[in-house]
Amino acid sequence: MTRGRFITLEGGEGAGKSTQLRALAQALRSRGLDVVETREPGGSEGAEAVRALLLTGGADRWSPRAEALLFAAARADHVEKTIRPALQRGAWVLSDRFLDSSRAYQGQGALSDADIVALHRLGSEGFLPDRTLLLTLPDNEAAQRARRRDGDQSDRIGGRDSDFHRAVASAFARFAADEPDRVRAVDASGAAEDVTDRLVATLSDLLP
Amino acid sequence: MTRGRFITLEGGEGAGKSTQLRALAQALRSRGLDVVETREPGGSEGAEAVRALLLTGGADRWSPRAEALLFAAARADHVEKTIRPALQRGAWVLSDRFLDSSRAYQGQGALSDADIVALHRLGSEGFLPDRTLLLTLPDNEAAQRARRRDGDQSDRIGGRDSDFHRAVASAFARFAADEPDRVRAVDASGAAEDVTDRLVATLSDLLP
Repeated sequence: MTRGRFITLEGGEGAGKSTQLRALAQALRSRGLDVVETREPGGSEGAEAVRALLLTGGADRWSPRAEALLFAAARADHVEKTIRPALQRGAWVLSDRFLDSSRAYQGQGALSDADIVALHRLGSEGFLPDRTLLLTLPDNEAAQRARRRDGDQSDRIGGRDSDFHRAVASAFARFAADEPDRVRAVDASGAAEDVTDRLVATLSDLLP
Repeated sequence: MTRGRFITLEGGEGAGKSTQLRALAQALRSRGLDVVETREPGGSEGAEAVRALLLTGGADRWSPRAEALLFAAARADHVEKTIRPALQRGAWVLSDRFLDSSRAYQGQGALSDADIVALHRLGSEGFLPDRTLLLTLPDNEAAQRARRRDGDQSDRIGGRDSDFHRAVASAFARFAADEPDRVRAVDASGAAEDVTDRLVATLSDLLP
């Protein structure tokens, strides 16, 4: 049995990751692949319990350091209980967010990018995706989409100000520049089907 | 206002840490000190929520790596929300377990002692007690006391085998040898009042 591939979707709020993850999973299944759809924080029983701690409460419920440790703990459980077993049995695993979200959201303040990577080494032995699809949108379009979706319902993480979200977008862009083989920026504007086609094309070298 | 002192009680199961912590707090209060009693995992609202995740479920609910990250996350919250503010206002803080328990319990397997110390640096900026009182008992006496107390009720962590508990005891002894000023072994056998007297004596150089 060939090991499956681990693909992550990343990007700021409103880039359409969840919708595109479902569409990409369908496209890969139509090619005969076994596909597991998952997300972070969460994706395993233990990680979902940690997710509940992370996404509820006020913006200051957790310090940035405690928050980064909780994300890394949830990720360790997700990798061990869900992702690795699925890859072992030959499935492709698509995750809505993974390490790069922690690097972009938690690695720009009290903790550095190197600190977040160190946490990932300790929690998950530095396990990385085979490919990371970074959905990119012009600033104004992303903000518009996020507002349309969330109304006033955005959570502890999503509910931060626009400077914060611009810093996140620029961190993601840096990851794509630093690891061009793993992290690929994909234009997420325009019709959803066209975006899905671009995502599939960006995986073409990995497809059987 | 002079900053208070941060004192931790450490040792294996059945060494009498909880009883001695209460007695030591009383002894310090009778000397006019403001004393905060706390414990790990837990000791703050967020950390208690993480404690609930850590201490329930089967022995394999969390991998050793995820467990170590959860302890470090709880500790980060405990330090920030409970310990540091109390010390700032001049109180003495007594904690039933702290970093050395993570080093002894989680730093002897998948993760090394250096890894646990690295997690503490990331989570709590490496914050250390002013003194750590290590309650020591001969193996057989500790096991007897732990059995008497727990019956069949011991939790995920306490419920491990005697080889594991011996490894923990020898790790604690190593910490005392490596950091003789901070970590002091105190004989926990004999009458409870005598043990308390020994603990107070071991803090004499710190007392006002």
